[in-house]
Amino acid sequence: MNKNILIHPVMLMAAMAFGLPAFAQQALWDKAPAKSPEVNPDNSVTFRLVAPEARKVVVTGDFLPAVKVESPEGSFDAPGTAELTKSTDGTWEYTSSVLSPELYSYSFIVDGTRFTDPSNVYQLRDISTLSNIFIIDGDYADNYRVSDVPHGTVSKVWYHSDSLGADRRMTVYTPAGYEKGDRRYPVLYLLHGMGGDENSWSELGRATQILDNLIASGKAEPMIVVMTNGNASMQAAPGETPQGLMIPTAQLPKTMDGSFEAHFPEVVEYIDSNYRTLADKGHRAIAGLSMGGFHSMQISKEYPEMFDYVGLFSAASHKRANGGAPVYEDFDGKIARQFANPPALYWIAIGDRDFLYEENRDFRSYLDSHGYPYIYRESPDGHIWKNWRIYLSEFLPMLFTR
Amino acid sequence: MNKNILIHPVMLMAAMAFGLPAFAQQALWDKAPAKSPEVNPDNSVTFRLVAPEARKVVVTGDFLPAVKVESPEGSFDAPGTAELTKSTDGTWEYTSSVLSPELYSYSFIVDGTRFTDPSNVYQLRDISTLSNIFIIDGDYADNYRVSDVPHGTVSKVWYHSDSLGADRRMTVYTPAGYEKGDRRYPVLYLLHGMGGDENSWSELGRATQILDNLIASGKAEPMIVVMTNGNASMQAAPGETPQGLMIPTAQLPKTMDGSFEAHFPEVVEYIDSNYRTLADKGHRAIAGLSMGGFHSMQISKEYPEMFDYVGLFSAASHKRANGGAPVYEDFDGKIARQFANPPALYWIAIGDRDFLYEENRDFRSYLDSHGYPYIYRESPDGHIWKNWRIYLSEFLPMLFTR
Repeated sequence: MNKNILIHPVMLMAAMAFGLPAFAQQALWDKAPAKSPEVNPDNSVTFRLVAPEARKVVVTGDFLPAVKVESPEGSFDAPGTAELTKSTDGTWEYTSSVLSPELYSYSFIVDGTRFTDPSNVYQLRDISTLSNIFIIDGDYADNYRVSDVPHGTVSKVWYHSDSLGADRRMTVYTPAGYEKGDRRYPVLYLLHGMGGDENSWSELGRATQILDNLIASGKAEPMIVVMTNGNASMQAAPGETPQGLMIPTAQLPKTMDGSFEAHFPEVVEYIDSNYRTLADKGHRAIAGLSMGGFHSMQISKEYPEMFDYVGLFSAASHKRANGGAPVYEDFDGKIARQFANPPALYWIAIGDRDFLYEENRDFRSYLDSHGYPYIYRESPDGHIWKNWRIYLSEFLPMLFTR
Repeated sequence: MNKNILIHPVMLMAAMAFGLPAFAQQALWDKAPAKSPEVNPDNSVTFRLVAPEARKVVVTGDFLPAVKVESPEGSFDAPGTAELTKSTDGTWEYTSSVLSPELYSYSFIVDGTRFTDPSNVYQLRDISTLSNIFIIDGDYADNYRVSDVPHGTVSKVWYHSDSLGADRRMTVYTPAGYEKGDRRYPVLYLLHGMGGDENSWSELGRATQILDNLIASGKAEPMIVVMTNGNASMQAAPGETPQGLMIPTAQLPKTMDGSFEAHFPEVVEYIDSNYRTLADKGHRAIAGLSMGGFHSMQISKEYPEMFDYVGLFSAASHKRANGGAPVYEDFDGKIARQFANPPALYWIAIGDRDFLYEENRDFRSYLDSHGYPYIYRESPDGHIWKNWRIYLSEFLPMLFTR
């Protein structure tokens, strides 16, 4: 018999009385999990792992100072690491320095192999990797909490695209109170980056919590938010398609090839047909991160009468278009038409350590040289979700106010 | 820089988790540590873990023959274990026997500590434990796949309960086509067990897939399905409440104390007010597993004009009521009133190894002695999600047909 199964009488009685499923029962009778992570009163965080037989346990995550890594593809920031210390009872432990408010990610490296923390059920998937998360409250991060405010509805909705020949999944946020009454709402289309999917903004991006909190405090207008899947070869997030429980990948065949952008009016038409929207340019916004910023740039200039608010978060440049799709032809002429009647807001945000920093500077020079108006926001750090959550928190209050 | 110094696979993988640039490091994004689990053509499954420094790696899960565990309170089934074998490159591997169609759960035990498989992003949470999952297609398990059929919408919806004094979260499934037209639909209220929440049926229970597949094939009526949170002290699933990222527990203060059952008409009223329902007894069903079966029994007898279809899946007995709430008074009289005009379907299902088997037999004897009609389904196995997915697949086709 597996020696890890410790039959603790209280647990057993609870299970017997309350009907816990068998696999959970096994888990409950594992040696009691450590309290990990524990956010201490001073906002340091203690990580613990019960692993009496391990020889080395390391925690890695974005709460530690980044390490600069050089690779043939260029240099990038990797999260730092810190060693846990083993106590006599076999529990390893490390306490961080005092941390600033933020949603952080981490994982353990146990004798050289990376695992998630078995004591922490809160994880987020980024492409093919799961990491644990924790939140230090305060400042921006108070927007990432579930607060005691009215909550919007978050739906996974399937729509049909004729041009892509597929049913496709998206996430739709409707604000608290939507179900009551006949009020019509403006719409933000919020797009993810390469390797992401229709779940990314509501999970990694905490968009649901940010919207609930900003709307409740009156800082953002009540709005509908539509989070599409920007990979035209995919119907839905990994695991949500007929391909089954596939290994997620960022390298998809129809990415930034124009097909997603060209199909976008089908999304807008579906939303305007099925939700109580304010269906005009002045009440539509589009924004996205990285590839989704590229998509927002392309879509907003391709359909210049569709969106009055445009947000490019750490956007890839229009020069990264993959192939010569019609949507990518005559960029200069199309963006000239877009800015002949300029958007109410064209907002560009990027981190000063982002690998796309240079091409964003080039794009701004291009806009400047033509006198196209925009607002620029530069933050610290690189191409990371921390920035995109902050950008969303700053972008939402500017929407539908002009 | 010499890439051998810093470009360690673990470092890269850790970096990938935290929002590395989507393009510059594109080549890195595919580096899942191993292909695991791999479902082989003969339906055996190979598990792999890259752990060169580990000394012992074990896989445990419900795909292995259960192990009988004896304790002072009785015996129960625990999942079996199997040892992986280390190859010269440091990858550990184990191939199972040929498996029957099913959704299975597993995890690794590495040098005595339980971890999830770092190569498999598909995990489900059961109370405070995450386990990896995989699916062997065929038979019942074909209902658990995402198929190329029209998909319903799954929404996380908040409603207000006056009697519980809280906003509370639930999962609502509306069938494909709901958004179009004015059709009204029958409603199934589907309740989880102790320690579960409003996410349990749609995640562990694969209810979304089962509904999509059975409705698409014409085996079940198109219906709305409402999955509530049955823990009256909780507003929502762990992590979805103002309490933050708390450690989930099954031992909650207001469970099976009558308060959830007493508030249930507020749920029905919310659904009938906000969805296009057929708002009468003949078009309402209630079913649940374990504690949710107990709740279904209590609610359906408390409000005998509300539900014409009742499903008790591995239900806890009415004798387990926790305290003397009004809803628990006069059970005999109330169930007599319910069966004075018997439900169109009163369905009782349980596994022959379920720890609640005896009290289900006692309850059936009680019903028999009074001549109250019901249908009984006995399956193999115990108090496990495998059975509840099967019961749901069998229960749905019987609904709203009489």
